[in-house]
Amino acid sequence: MIRVDVELAERSYPIFIGGGLLRDASLLARTIKTRQVMVVTNDRVGPLYLDTLRQGLTDRQLACVVLPDGEQFKTLESFSQIMTALLEHKFERGCTVVALGGGVVGDLAGFAAACYQRGVRFVQIPTTLLAQVDSAVGGKTAVNHALGKNMIGAFHQPVAVLADLDTLNTLEAREFRAGVAEVIKYGLMRDREFFDWLELNLDALMAREPAAVTHAIKRSCENKADVVAADEHESGERALLNLGHTFGHAIEHALGYGVWLHGEAVAAGMCMAARMSARVGMIAPTTRDRVIALIERAGLPTVQPPTTSVTELLAAMSIDKKNQDGRIRLILLDAIGHASVRDDYDQQALLEVLGGGAAPPRAA
Amino acid sequence: MIRVDVELAERSYPIFIGGGLLRDASLLARTIKTRQVMVVTNDRVGPLYLDTLRQGLTDRQLACVVLPDGEQFKTLESFSQIMTALLEHKFERGCTVVALGGGVVGDLAGFAAACYQRGVRFVQIPTTLLAQVDSAVGGKTAVNHALGKNMIGAFHQPVAVLADLDTLNTLEAREFRAGVAEVIKYGLMRDREFFDWLELNLDALMAREPAAVTHAIKRSCENKADVVAADEHESGERALLNLGHTFGHAIEHALGYGVWLHGEAVAAGMCMAARMSARVGMIAPTTRDRVIALIERAGLPTVQPPTTSVTELLAAMSIDKKNQDGRIRLILLDAIGHASVRDDYDQQALLEVLGGGAAPPRAA
Repeated sequence: MIRVDVELAERSYPIFIGGGLLRDASLLARTIKTRQVMVVTNDRVGPLYLDTLRQGLTDRQLACVVLPDGEQFKTLESFSQIMTALLEHKFERGCTVVALGGGVVGDLAGFAAACYQRGVRFVQIPTTLLAQVDSAVGGKTAVNHALGKNMIGAFHQPVAVLADLDTLNTLEAREFRAGVAEVIKYGLMRDREFFDWLELNLDALMAREPAAVTHAIKRSCENKADVVAADEHESGERALLNLGHTFGHAIEHALGYGVWLHGEAVAAGMCMAARMSARVGMIAPTTRDRVIALIERAGLPTVQPPTTSVTELLAAMSIDKKNQDGRIRLILLDAIGHASVRDDYDQQALLEVLGGGAAPPRAA
Repeated sequence: MIRVDVELAERSYPIFIGGGLLRDASLLARTIKTRQVMVVTNDRVGPLYLDTLRQGLTDRQLACVVLPDGEQFKTLESFSQIMTALLEHKFERGCTVVALGGGVVGDLAGFAAACYQRGVRFVQIPTTLLAQVDSAVGGKTAVNHALGKNMIGAFHQPVAVLADLDTLNTLEAREFRAGVAEVIKYGLMRDREFFDWLELNLDALMAREPAAVTHAIKRSCENKADVVAADEHESGERALLNLGHTFGHAIEHALGYGVWLHGEAVAAGMCMAARMSARVGMIAPTTRDRVIALIERAGLPTVQPPTTSVTELLAAMSIDKKNQDGRIRLILLDAIGHASVRDDYDQQALLEVLGGGAAPPRAA
């Protein structure tokens, strides 16, 4: 078991990465400390792991909320359902909410933990690669609104993250690839050495070879932990974690949540950011092509869907948390391993990048 | 104009108390600094003050949400309505949400400010005595759930509080009295000198003599600011501010929100806390009677409504944010000017206190 720490003074917490964590009763006892435990999961993950988790927590007052699977359920309605369950079971401020699932479950359960009685303990047990390398770490919680993704939320750090590598064995290929998109993001935005490693080891990673998967998760969590420790509430550097996300959120919004996976949209978004960076002369065309080639090798989409119009994408991008004074702010690349926030780019270049569409993501 | 500061390091903020603040364009410009301003108010307060506020903010992108008046609208649905308005107007993270109204508007708008894009600036313009002395100060925000009051919320400090004394002129007598309940609370829980002052000056206060009203608000805000500065997230002393509220919330919940005003329920709750404190021998019967006499003189209810049963009240009290390990925690009095949190009291005494009911509060 590897441990990566997120350093946030009195809110510091450990990320445990390894096999068999869900069956490790001693680890569960150390990380989930309260009598009352509310597990939030979905109808795909729950049947696979809920019983195992329950066996490690037999001495607790345990309750569960099992939601339907999918980004389209990351809503205020699902949030309200968790609140009702907490109250019906008379859960107190001294309880723990546990998220057992992917990014949707984590974001939703985390927001519920942030708001129930103005904040209760929260433990993340991410079961997808994307959640293990990104969404479960850093304390961003949210639900979507019909008019924008993640628009309603809170910063609420977990007290621990348990990334059980065994849960990745049951992950569909498409979901695994979506997680790889966020792994590539860390290399691109701030870790050139990791990007180089990914170019050399992508086949091993895609084949889910344990050593490659473990290194990819560890290095991703270390990068995320560094950024979050430096800028918990995204007043500066943390915005760079949104590389590919401004374009990606616009794709998700224009298609309707759940048509493309979040990681797929981010993959296409990173390629769009690379094209935009090349168009405005921040990177060479060869660098752009290196980015696109790695994402292509991972089996991820490299262009936006052909069905989305420039107008739709622009409208969706105009509602983004990074925007200031009506300007769409983009995360662009200065080099592989170095990104920066820009709002002084050529508008025409943006329109051209938004103009090119392509085929849908590969099926599982 | 008087200024009281809430000292919370980088989140410190001023409370301005005085007449004509809403017409003071320079003060508004100093405290509401952003281009985009969303005013949340209700259909009783809005028609009285919205135009005045608008005149001081002509250079901004101003939008409004006008909700129906009443505690029964402090819900997740109203919260969702504010989110929709913010998104429809394309409000950015750099916007300000302004609460113009009483405690309901402040709690709701504050929770919206806490969650919109994971937190935006918030300014409180409380227009009731209760909000000016209590709910607008300290950063507690929340909405109610059908199963419990203030169960969904966040700590989110305002950047400024503007308590315009002129707004109290339009306040109904019943609402003013409800505010006096929270004023008395500060004397009872931690400020014996202020309690003595209230005994001497209650008639002047109830007649809304400016000097008495100003002193009452100033002293209340100073007490609240001290407690909040010492314990922002209610891990200790701040719980004492709930004197009268455990009983009071149970009354509100059992009657249905909006039947009694919050301050009326707290008034009866403080009398119940005094009776309970006397029953378990913490205070003398003469002290208990002094508490009840002052609340009675303010025209506030001194006992719970006769229509609520012991069972209903107990059930409502069992869902309280202070409870630990299933024990109902009460704020009881050791003396006038000194309260403490207790869960080691005689259950029979509690049942007896919950057993006595009385007539409804005086009409306006």
